[in-house]
Amino acid sequence: MTKWVYSFGGGKADGGANLRNLLGGKGANLAEMSSLGLPVPPGFTLTTEVCAHYTNNDNTYPEALAGEVNKALATVEKIIGAKFGDPENVLLVSVRSGARASMPGMMDTVLNLGLNEDTVEGLARASGDKRFAYDSYRRFIQMYGDVVLGVEHHMFEEILEDHKEKLGKTLDTDLSADNWRDLIERYMDMVEEELGRPFPQDPAEQLWGAIDAVFGSWMNRRAKTYRKLHGIPEDWGTAVNIQSMVFGNMGEDCATGVAFTRDPSAGENAYYGEYLINAQGEDVVAGIRTPQSLTIAGKQAGGSPLPSMEETMPDTYAELLSVRARLEGHYKDMQDMEFTVQKGRLWMLQTRTGKRTTKAALKIAVDMVAEGLIDKAEAIRRIDPGQLDQLLHPTLDPDAKRDIFGIGLPASPGAASGRIVFNAEDAEAWTERGEKVILVRIETSPEDIGGMYIAKGILTTRGGMTSHAAVVARGMGTPCVSGAGSFAVDYTNKTLTALDVTLHEGDVITIDGSKGQVIKGEVPTILPELSGDFSLLMEWADEIRTLGVRANAETSKDVQTARDFGAEGVGLCRTEHMFFDHERIIHVREMIVARDEEQRRRALDKLLPFQRQDFIELFTIMEGLPVTIRLLDPPLHEFLPHSEHDMIEVAESAGLDVEDIRARAGQLHEFNPMLGHRGCRLGITYPEIYEMQARAIFEAAAEVVAKGQQVNPEVMIPLVGMKKEFTILKELVKRIAGEVQKKKGVTIDYMIGTMIELPRAALRAAEIAEEAEFFSFGTNDLTQTALGLSRDDAGPFIQIYQEKGVIEANPFITIDVEGVGELVKIAIERGRQARPNIKLGICGEHGGDAASVKFFHDVGLDYVSCSPYRVPIARLAAAQAALGVKAEDNA
Amino acid sequence: MTKWVYSFGGGKADGGANLRNLLGGKGANLAEMSSLGLPVPPGFTLTTEVCAHYTNNDNTYPEALAGEVNKALATVEKIIGAKFGDPENVLLVSVRSGARASMPGMMDTVLNLGLNEDTVEGLARASGDKRFAYDSYRRFIQMYGDVVLGVEHHMFEEILEDHKEKLGKTLDTDLSADNWRDLIERYMDMVEEELGRPFPQDPAEQLWGAIDAVFGSWMNRRAKTYRKLHGIPEDWGTAVNIQSMVFGNMGEDCATGVAFTRDPSAGENAYYGEYLINAQGEDVVAGIRTPQSLTIAGKQAGGSPLPSMEETMPDTYAELLSVRARLEGHYKDMQDMEFTVQKGRLWMLQTRTGKRTTKAALKIAVDMVAEGLIDKAEAIRRIDPGQLDQLLHPTLDPDAKRDIFGIGLPASPGAASGRIVFNAEDAEAWTERGEKVILVRIETSPEDIGGMYIAKGILTTRGGMTSHAAVVARGMGTPCVSGAGSFAVDYTNKTLTALDVTLHEGDVITIDGSKGQVIKGEVPTILPELSGDFSLLMEWADEIRTLGVRANAETSKDVQTARDFGAEGVGLCRTEHMFFDHERIIHVREMIVARDEEQRRRALDKLLPFQRQDFIELFTIMEGLPVTIRLLDPPLHEFLPHSEHDMIEVAESAGLDVEDIRARAGQLHEFNPMLGHRGCRLGITYPEIYEMQARAIFEAAAEVVAKGQQVNPEVMIPLVGMKKEFTILKELVKRIAGEVQKKKGVTIDYMIGTMIELPRAALRAAEIAEEAEFFSFGTNDLTQTALGLSRDDAGPFIQIYQEKGVIEANPFITIDVEGVGELVKIAIERGRQARPNIKLGICGEHGGDAASVKFFHDVGLDYVSCSPYRVPIARLAAAQAALGVKAEDNA
Repeated sequence: MTKWVYSFGGGKADGGANLRNLLGGKGANLAEMSSLGLPVPPGFTLTTEVCAHYTNNDNTYPEALAGEVNKALATVEKIIGAKFGDPENVLLVSVRSGARASMPGMMDTVLNLGLNEDTVEGLARASGDKRFAYDSYRRFIQMYGDVVLGVEHHMFEEILEDHKEKLGKTLDTDLSADNWRDLIERYMDMVEEELGRPFPQDPAEQLWGAIDAVFGSWMNRRAKTYRKLHGIPEDWGTAVNIQSMVFGNMGEDCATGVAFTRDPSAGENAYYGEYLINAQGEDVVAGIRTPQSLTIAGKQAGGSPLPSMEETMPDTYAELLSVRARLEGHYKDMQDMEFTVQKGRLWMLQTRTGKRTTKAALKIAVDMVAEGLIDKAEAIRRIDPGQLDQLLHPTLDPDAKRDIFGIGLPASPGAASGRIVFNAEDAEAWTERGEKVILVRIETSPEDIGGMYIAKGILTTRGGMTSHAAVVARGMGTPCVSGAGSFAVDYTNKTLTALDVTLHEGDVITIDGSKGQVIKGEVPTILPELSGDFSLLMEWADEIRTLGVRANAETSKDVQTARDFGAEGVGLCRTEHMFFDHERIIHVREMIVARDEEQRRRALDKLLPFQRQDFIELFTIMEGLPVTIRLLDPPLHEFLPHSEHDMIEVAESAGLDVEDIRARAGQLHEFNPMLGHRGCRLGITYPEIYEMQARAIFEAAAEVVAKGQQVNPEVMIPLVGMKKEFTILKELVKRIAGEVQKKKGVTIDYMIGTMIELPRAALRAAEIAEEAEFFSFGTNDLTQTALGLSRDDAGPFIQIYQEKGVIEANPFITIDVEGVGELVKIAIERGRQARPNIKLGICGEHGGDAASVKFFHDVGLDYVSCSPYRVPIARLAAAQAALGVKAEDNA
Repeated sequence: MTKWVYSFGGGKADGGANLRNLLGGKGANLAEMSSLGLPVPPGFTLTTEVCAHYTNNDNTYPEALAGEVNKALATVEKIIGAKFGDPENVLLVSVRSGARASMPGMMDTVLNLGLNEDTVEGLARASGDKRFAYDSYRRFIQMYGDVVLGVEHHMFEEILEDHKEKLGKTLDTDLSADNWRDLIERYMDMVEEELGRPFPQDPAEQLWGAIDAVFGSWMNRRAKTYRKLHGIPEDWGTAVNIQSMVFGNMGEDCATGVAFTRDPSAGENAYYGEYLINAQGEDVVAGIRTPQSLTIAGKQAGGSPLPSMEETMPDTYAELLSVRARLEGHYKDMQDMEFTVQKGRLWMLQTRTGKRTTKAALKIAVDMVAEGLIDKAEAIRRIDPGQLDQLLHPTLDPDAKRDIFGIGLPASPGAASGRIVFNAEDAEAWTERGEKVILVRIETSPEDIGGMYIAKGILTTRGGMTSHAAVVARGMGTPCVSGAGSFAVDYTNKTLTALDVTLHEGDVITIDGSKGQVIKGEVPTILPELSGDFSLLMEWADEIRTLGVRANAETSKDVQTARDFGAEGVGLCRTEHMFFDHERIIHVREMIVARDEEQRRRALDKLLPFQRQDFIELFTIMEGLPVTIRLLDPPLHEFLPHSEHDMIEVAESAGLDVEDIRARAGQLHEFNPMLGHRGCRLGITYPEIYEMQARAIFEAAAEVVAKGQQVNPEVMIPLVGMKKEFTILKELVKRIAGEVQKKKGVTIDYMIGTMIELPRAALRAAEIAEEAEFFSFGTNDLTQTALGLSRDDAGPFIQIYQEKGVIEANPFITIDVEGVGELVKIAIERGRQARPNIKLGICGEHGGDAASVKFFHDVGLDYVSCSPYRVPIARLAAAQAALGVKAEDNA
């Protein structure tokens, strides 16, 4: 038989912290505290299963529920020694929601329930304080009227205001018992008028009304939205906690407060909290009165003139201090508690794992290891890898004013201010003049790389979290807000318009890439400070993880950053990014518009020294570590000029007419470039391009080897779908490698492998692995092809898909385990079958996403590769994966 | 121990027709004829394994070969009673290639081998004809000099011409024995001068030189190209046949000829052939003399004044007639034979299965069934489904002159003439004036559908065999040449230019869609005549096949054609094709530019009656047969106007500015529309569109049902990748179906299913099948996504891929069994697991490709669906598949 109601209080409990799913967070912890012998007002919890029954059965309850509630209520009455509804010795209760995951403020609460015209008199007598009794009653009417009866809050507020005005009084505290009594009458009249029936006087009716309201609030719009935003499943449901009331507002020997067992902001191992004398919990939150510090140290640190609890209530404070020790010792984590002191007696109303900043999380975890409370593995488990981003980028000063001008997607974390410019050339020009710039584009293309590289931040009005701008910005660690659709960009007049305000080139904005905010003017930023805690935790992560972590990087700066952040090699060097440099792009374009192979080879000969130099730098920085270099991947038309000026330049340099350039561009135009003439298809149709790149790689390697350094190039052929493609290009690379080694008289230890980024490649992995020495999963393109979904075009409907619950996560951010993931698994299995020691990695954007890293660990990849700024995230996520942490544990 | 040499002749043979792979076609059939006791000049065959050894071992032979050749030669000498190299009684031989597959004229042949200064005298004595002997010798020198020694043919020709000129003689036959003798001297001098060594006199040296040359010719460029074009693997190799010479040119009692056991053109059961008295085989081919008919009937039919063999050599003819009966009886197929009569004695030099026209193939197959030679299944096996196309479309009169103006891809078979127009509107205007038009476009888009529909033919200068133009044209049965890149199209001036010739709008061209030819002016065409043989064969095919055949069609005309061609339902009705009609497109565009859902619904309301009427017609024509209707699939921007005029019209009709239209178009623009906002993604984001379409389907069905007809609509949701997508849209369709049925008071027997066209859908087939009642494989898109290959953009490199041997077949024409095929198999297996009775079909272009149909049969699909004109092909291919015919058997 299902048990619907769980009692707690009086030093024991039916449930405990392990029943969180059934009792909700609040209920489970109340039970736990009760079992620990802590002073918890007795009460009981209606389980989340009652909620499920309620929502699935037209808002009705299981038959047995009423009996169990009555029984549990009787137990409470017995412990307290008072009776619900008995004017002689009244028991009042609170009714609160409590879901499995915290949903602060989303659902409803009713306090002081059980008060009516009779019991309020009893309360007055028992407390010896009429004013308190009537105040409690009017609070109850307000709350119950609003939450349960649906009488809007402002109706009560207006009457209260009017009442005070008529009385010539300002503060609630100025009102006498009689004043409250009169107000209650006005409230009662208003409610009856609104509803056509009087305010319920029967405590049982009040109770069931409140229970209905809490369960009903699970499905209210606010709660639904919150769940969608936080990925909380609808079928979890909420529990309802009914607990005997304790009062912090019965006089000067009463108080209420909240406390953290450690500082949730900096993480210091010090008691941290606030309290108010003679107040109810809501008063602390409401901010009407200034809360006072719990401790003397806190008071001094805050420079507050008000006395601390340590001073005003030393005995209770001592008791609270022992509760702190008791709870941390028990939960082995920092706790966030609520308490009430009623007539000198301490009551614990709630405890839960406290939220904290990433900085605090790091410090607390590391400290607790030192204190012997937890082990290193537990410390690793405690940190949400995704939050590390906060530490690695400059952030806006939280106290500074933000004149928000528009919102986009938080595409690349960090914050930056600068003058707006609208193209890469202007970005360079302003930068040369010593200005910081924010590059504003409708969307970016590889042509903009130069400008993106020197800009302090990037703002686009189109494109999603995985648009070109977003991906490149994250790779560079540059803050970026993408897809800010409310802005209009005018390239001709160089303006950015939103909210009827138009900014011009040179105007200053600030972007917060972690929040997606675009702010007018400059906002001060705070620089990241990588603490010793961070390094220590990363060391522990490295000890635990089995998955390697590399970086996707090509420029010296990025490669150096990656190495500093602990990357164990380069997993993806995108050679095409090197093509956009101003000195080279002209030769790249000459190569593309070449009339014949000979002319193409001439242009390539000019590019060779540049590429060689790039690789020399790269190999030197990554000395001794593997470096995976992908041969040219994007379709050639991506490199062609768009502006008239550039076209003329290319035409002149190639000895052609501008018309020829335009014709060539027309010829190269593609309907679906993603599925077009790119990757190894270029290598097969224009072998001379890959020959030049292979030559640059091996000549660079030879030069570095000659200096006595170790080099491990891994040449990667992109977009292979058929074994024959790979074989042809492998032979080409081997031939060039052989030539260079012979000529330079050195031996280079290299590998040739491929990306697995097409479904066909995954399926044919066995035969491809016969030839390929490594696979690197290109999960971006694999997602695009497996799902038939263009990363650049999916923005508008991906959002609707998430809203309609078609998908949970954006598949370009967290890997689609069921679809793309199965292809990865198939390729691993078949690849290993053919070549047991094949090296397996992944170099898509997913390499920096914690949930995806967990998957890659589980399926047995050798390494993940991600953008330099995500390397610490991947290291931590890989360690958590090794510890078996589930992705949702970080939710 | 490997046997390298196989003897034949003298009424027996080591090999037979079953050893075709080892002995080549010619060698195997010579052995077979020999075993049958037919008069075959004795000889022997060096196997294809010798060829493999030769090419793989630096042109050297197996050790045992020389011994086996000598032994076989001795056997020949014994049968003939003459000796190789013996001037007293000379044996001469021919050395001929003979591969597994016929490669006419591709490799080398040497005749009269064994002649030298001594044996030529012996031959003169033995034949009693000095002139014949010297003529034979000079022919040998010419042939051997060219083929084996590498002295170019023209060197001999020039000497011969000079010789004749000096002698004042015109014809070869005018030359005397002495004249030839003198010529031989000049030949010998020239050869020695060219090579620096004399012409080889040793018959053994001659023989091995010829063997080398034939094996070497397997790898010559011409042969390689031929193999690539005809898909013949390089490792098959050729055999070499060495056979004692017989002479048709030893006098008036000698002759040579070719014969077909039946008419290869019309298929009549009548002996058909040509012969020449006193001639060698090459004379028949060379066309110097006019060959004479074998039979009196043939002579009369051809109106020839020359006597037939039946008249001139009645005994030999009678013998040849018995050979005909013997061979047809044995091979049970029409044979193509070569024979020589030497001094009244008949020798058979070759027999092979005769090539024939499709018409003849049909007639022969059907006749042979009637004659009891073969059964129906064999008749089915005999016809190449791909060739049926020839019968179903008008073809150009083969005798008419073709002024070829350019070449493109044979994108849709058939031929058509008409005036060129450059856009759909002009096509309509000219057609209204009663003109036939050929629509010329750089490439077509759905907007051109109207013009494509009324054009007699379509010519595009871009796009491949599966471009939009090609696919639509094949669907309509309209001839189309696509990707004719040598043409320049100028839309502004309405001109088509190639070869420095410019045609203007209104000029007449003819296109041959079967050959890809573009011809200036009008060329007469021959209408297809579907014979009783065709219908009979199709009936037999239907009896044998188990795979259903449906058609991809939406217009009344196409649906009717499909039914006439035997389609068993519609497998794909593309509702978007119905949107382009002039009356509707304005409402479609209104719908797209609508500011909100309400405005969108208003536009959709206007479309509803049109769609309903379409479906009524469709259901009526296909009465009682299933009709699969795909809901809107392409991205909305495909429907937007491009011309200023159309934009203004839409703006006015929708009450918007042209600027709004342009802005909306910009908003809808996609980088990769193939992977964009289309298919079920539209249904989820704009449910009102699918609602309208579902309403039109069910209202139409209700109307037809009300008339007492049976309707089986199958509503198909496109581009599903996730179960939830399907579930949401299935609920939508079911809701509308329920509403309509209730309102109209009828019950409609319908199904809801999905296309499987994304790799993810194939992988998740089990869960999708929980909801979907049928799957239809969209193999076009599945190929695009699995291979990451855009159908519209792959043209340029697919061709290079084929040339470089990366792929054998274009994967958009013949299904990629290893990649896409595995996804199909996975989906079938998983789909059936979840829903054992799930209906499975395919509606990609592959449904009309014989090799692909075989695959679909083998993996157990229920039906294929293809364009109406390909329905007969699919029916035949399905029957062959049921008979276990391999695709390569049709090669």
